[in-house]
Amino acid sequence: MSESPNTGSLILKLHCPDQVGIVAAVSGYLADAGYNIRRSYQFEDDETKTFFMRTTVDPQANSAIRPTLEAGFAAIAERFKMTWGLHDPTRKMRMLPLVSKFGHCLNDLLYRWRSGLLPIDIPAVVSNHREFEELAKWHGLPFHYLPVDKTNKAAQEAALIELMDQYKIDLVVLARYMQVLSPDLCERLRGRCINIHHSFLPSFKGAQPYSQAFNRGVKLIGATAHYVTPDLDEGQIIEQAVERVDHTFTVDQLAALGRDIESVVLARAVQFHAEHRVTINGHKTVVFW
Amino acid sequence: MSESPNTGSLILKLHCPDQVGIVAAVSGYLADAGYNIRRSYQFEDDETKTFFMRTTVDPQANSAIRPTLEAGFAAIAERFKMTWGLHDPTRKMRMLPLVSKFGHCLNDLLYRWRSGLLPIDIPAVVSNHREFEELAKWHGLPFHYLPVDKTNKAAQEAALIELMDQYKIDLVVLARYMQVLSPDLCERLRGRCINIHHSFLPSFKGAQPYSQAFNRGVKLIGATAHYVTPDLDEGQIIEQAVERVDHTFTVDQLAALGRDIESVVLARAVQFHAEHRVTINGHKTVVFW
Amino acid sequence: MSESPNTGSLILKLHCPDQVGIVAAVSGYLADAGYNIRRSYQFEDDETKTFFMRTTVDPQANSAIRPTLEAGFAAIAERFKMTWGLHDPTRKMRMLPLVSKFGHCLNDLLYRWRSGLLPIDIPAVVSNHREFEELAKWHGLPFHYLPVDKTNKAAQEAALIELMDQYKIDLVVLARYMQVLSPDLCERLRGRCINIHHSFLPSFKGAQPYSQAFNRGVKLIGATAHYVTPDLDEGQIIEQAVERVDHTFTVDQLAALGRDIESVVLARAVQFHAEHRVTINGHKTVVFW
Amino acid sequence: MSESPNTGSLILKLHCPDQVGIVAAVSGYLADAGYNIRRSYQFEDDETKTFFMRTTVDPQANSAIRPTLEAGFAAIAERFKMTWGLHDPTRKMRMLPLVSKFGHCLNDLLYRWRSGLLPIDIPAVVSNHREFEELAKWHGLPFHYLPVDKTNKAAQEAALIELMDQYKIDLVVLARYMQVLSPDLCERLRGRCINIHHSFLPSFKGAQPYSQAFNRGVKLIGATAHYVTPDLDEGQIIEQAVERVDHTFTVDQLAALGRDIESVVLARAVQFHAEHRVTINGHKTVVFW
Repeated sequence: MSESPNTGSLILKLHCPDQVGIVAAVSGYLADAGYNIRRSYQFEDDETKTFFMRTTVDPQANSAIRPTLEAGFAAIAERFKMTWGLHDPTRKMRMLPLVSKFGHCLNDLLYRWRSGLLPIDIPAVVSNHREFEELAKWHGLPFHYLPVDKTNKAAQEAALIELMDQYKIDLVVLARYMQVLSPDLCERLRGRCINIHHSFLPSFKGAQPYSQAFNRGVKLIGATAHYVTPDLDEGQIIEQAVERVDHTFTVDQLAALGRDIESVVLARAVQFHAEHRVTINGHKTVVFW
Repeated sequence: MSESPNTGSLILKLHCPDQVGIVAAVSGYLADAGYNIRRSYQFEDDETKTFFMRTTVDPQANSAIRPTLEAGFAAIAERFKMTWGLHDPTRKMRMLPLVSKFGHCLNDLLYRWRSGLLPIDIPAVVSNHREFEELAKWHGLPFHYLPVDKTNKAAQEAALIELMDQYKIDLVVLARYMQVLSPDLCERLRGRCINIHHSFLPSFKGAQPYSQAFNRGVKLIGATAHYVTPDLDEGQIIEQAVERVDHTFTVDQLAALGRDIESVVLARAVQFHAEHRVTINGHKTVVFW
Repeated sequence: MSESPNTGSLILKLHCPDQVGIVAAVSGYLADAGYNIRRSYQFEDDETKTFFMRTTVDPQANSAIRPTLEAGFAAIAERFKMTWGLHDPTRKMRMLPLVSKFGHCLNDLLYRWRSGLLPIDIPAVVSNHREFEELAKWHGLPFHYLPVDKTNKAAQEAALIELMDQYKIDLVVLARYMQVLSPDLCERLRGRCINIHHSFLPSFKGAQPYSQAFNRGVKLIGATAHYVTPDLDEGQIIEQAVERVDHTFTVDQLAALGRDIESVVLARAVQFHAEHRVTINGHKTVVFW
Repeated sequence: MSESPNTGSLILKLHCPDQVGIVAAVSGYLADAGYNIRRSYQFEDDETKTFFMRTTVDPQANSAIRPTLEAGFAAIAERFKMTWGLHDPTRKMRMLPLVSKFGHCLNDLLYRWRSGLLPIDIPAVVSNHREFEELAKWHGLPFHYLPVDKTNKAAQEAALIELMDQYKIDLVVLARYMQVLSPDLCERLRGRCINIHHSFLPSFKGAQPYSQAFNRGVKLIGATAHYVTPDLDEGQIIEQAVERVDHTFTVDQLAALGRDIESVVLARAVQFHAEHRVTINGHKTVVFW
């Protein structure tokens, strides 16, 4: 995984129906435009007959400028029916974290952001509670308190959408945000909203996964970062991890260990997404790292 | 985990309702009988108010002989309503493996047994197929072919029970034995029969777990060793492990990696059981290692 | 690992030359004093013939009060030549973090402290640089800037010792403090000072471990928390962990992943120490968890 | 990792000095020859300015036949100064295992070979001891007993080389072969000989690594598969793994757990090599999986 972009580097990410000649067309075009391939991944899904590609290129002395490159590539993309994007790795994604009463993921993301460890910008924090107002403000961030109950859900989500527009948000992260988004909002955020679920999905869907894990007597607990879809806890999995536990763990101790796993798994999923490594493939993801 | 028994070492395993003075009574008795505690674990389950203990003791110059020790301990056990056993760690458990058409777990257990890596004796191999007859015979073991279909299940299980009696079996291991045991047989083998399930339970219960894992797009796959109970795949979990996978794995490749996990997880569960480290605690296990 | 103390619970930790009757004497005394054993670990080191024990006890209705319990136990301890301590698990250890220019471990420890996830109190932050003054102050903590160079090392350490006395520090944590402590200070802090080394020791001792790892082409990188001794990077290991890497990682990317490992490993080592789970055994540790 | 070859699939592996247009030239040529890219990996090493590529291609209806494809590619290879190979994934590498007195790795490799889990053929077994003669013969393999001592080392290695020629060996695997190969033999087998070292290198080089690990008190033990070079234990690392241990492990128990790690790590390294996933890059490896 991971790369340090050189000056002028670009990331090309695409997928399309598989056929002969895709790589030749893409790499031929890039070479003709004076770009050198530093790293590249390709994958063909035998089930869906879809071809996935992510390529990092460096400009050379006489390279085409980016708009020219992009315009020229559009023709190739049309020919192969590609879904594609050309990304500047130094342009940070704008991420909006939503949090409720557990702040470990938020704290971790804010620390990584401030330390330059994630290619993201965080312009604000949103919560349905007031617990992390002080933390947000210490980081110099506006804190938007959007409480939600049965009666105001539509209005609260409308306010949320307005904030996303206002801050030009690329990615919404549910950092232990304990509210189910409406189907409409899930649709609107399709592929742009990541949730951290505090279990190793598909084990222990729904509420209280650490209590479920305790009652089942599992010997490992885990966490899952996934895209949000209208089917709760059924979104495409981006990253998972587990840690060993034993019979001496109480529910609280499972949750304490689980918090460390959640923070790391969510940070990795955000990194993969922000580095343009993830493509949704039906119910699954392709993650090039 | 793990210990190398000294000559004359004994393992005392017990559980009972919790109350003050259990350890004092047990350790006082052992000291009076001239036994030295080398290693000991205790655990009190706050939920069930049950106390669990496993102690390894070494005899000294003037120790009581084992029958005397055992007879004297019975009085303490009765006073505290203990379920208990005093075990000679050099006495190997007699284990009967049942296998169908996947032999990796069987091969692994036979290798560990022959190399002295597990405190077990394997007197025979049972299968509902003929695939591993040659392997059993090469190891010098009788191979019992007990085919099963809808019409002969009761008779087949009766034959199985007869073999268990004949070989004085302590532990039955379903080493990828692709048959569901009858509720009666499950009851009879309660706490003495270990199954390896080829998923990280409770994910992917039932048939074809690697296909289920493939379809769900998980990023880790695992295996679970558990005691067999009448509720399929709901038995008490003894050991679990996982390995990382990605989008490039086909179902076959998930299964190939899974086989390595299964072999190791099953071997560990057998080791824990054979070393008297496991106690069933309702739907869970206490594993002292 | 891990336990939630009940009201009045106490932790007894001891080690002594091995002989028959230690557990009987200890547990008999505890039972007579009206204390119930909730959890207990014992271990006899066959090499050094030393016996180690850690026991958590709960008082009952008619228990002896703690000073009485402690006074009575002193006699047993003397008889068996024990090194021992009786600890109140609700009394938090006072921890002083020392940091230089990498703040991930400090940030992690401060977050866990504020969230009540570690049984410690942090009364101040010390650094030989000014980078984390703002962070300390946001947490409401005094920040002590103690710069050090070749000419003032003795004076700087004297100031450090004064701070430890002033804040009644139980545990010093070198949270990526990039200075070697003098042998005298190491001696003074023996068993009370934990360092995080950014490699899987004994691989890559000394400076620039991630560069060393990069040059060697290892496929896993790790971190090690150990007690500080006058022999640099040779102190007793408390905890270690690793993560997988591959050929695409630059030194910076190894270091980025390494920071996550360091934070978790150091937090665990601090937890184990603060919960009285660790005993030094020559060049090694016994960690009951 | 991993792929199931389709009929007629080919694997192209290459590396060369980096420059613009490599991928374009390669993929353009493949497309013109009627081959479809199923999966491809590229990597540019910023240090050595070397470009690495591994591509799996499927023939289409009108594809060039393999000799034509290969001949045409030679011109491109020459132009870019490539080191390259075009491999048929259904052609199994011929592997010769060398073993001494520990047979767990040998047993594991033989099992995987017989079960079709590794893309290798094993035509014989070589050992400087007689312990595994019976095992080899049960698998229907010739067993070559080549004892070695100070006086006959040159002659023994000459006999070994003769066997490699006779069996047309592609890959030699030191499956716990406890002899150091002569520098000449190491040179001759450069890039074609894999050793399993029973520690997490660079920790615990040389003899008795489990004793070293025991004495250092590490909390994880590991194993390392690497290419054999004249510098003992300094060869290019292909794969590593670790498992957790604690203070209760004796040297023997570390070794027992270590055997499981060794078997898995060696099997993976053999798989990566046999699937043409590994390229040596100076002191390191590039492993595409």
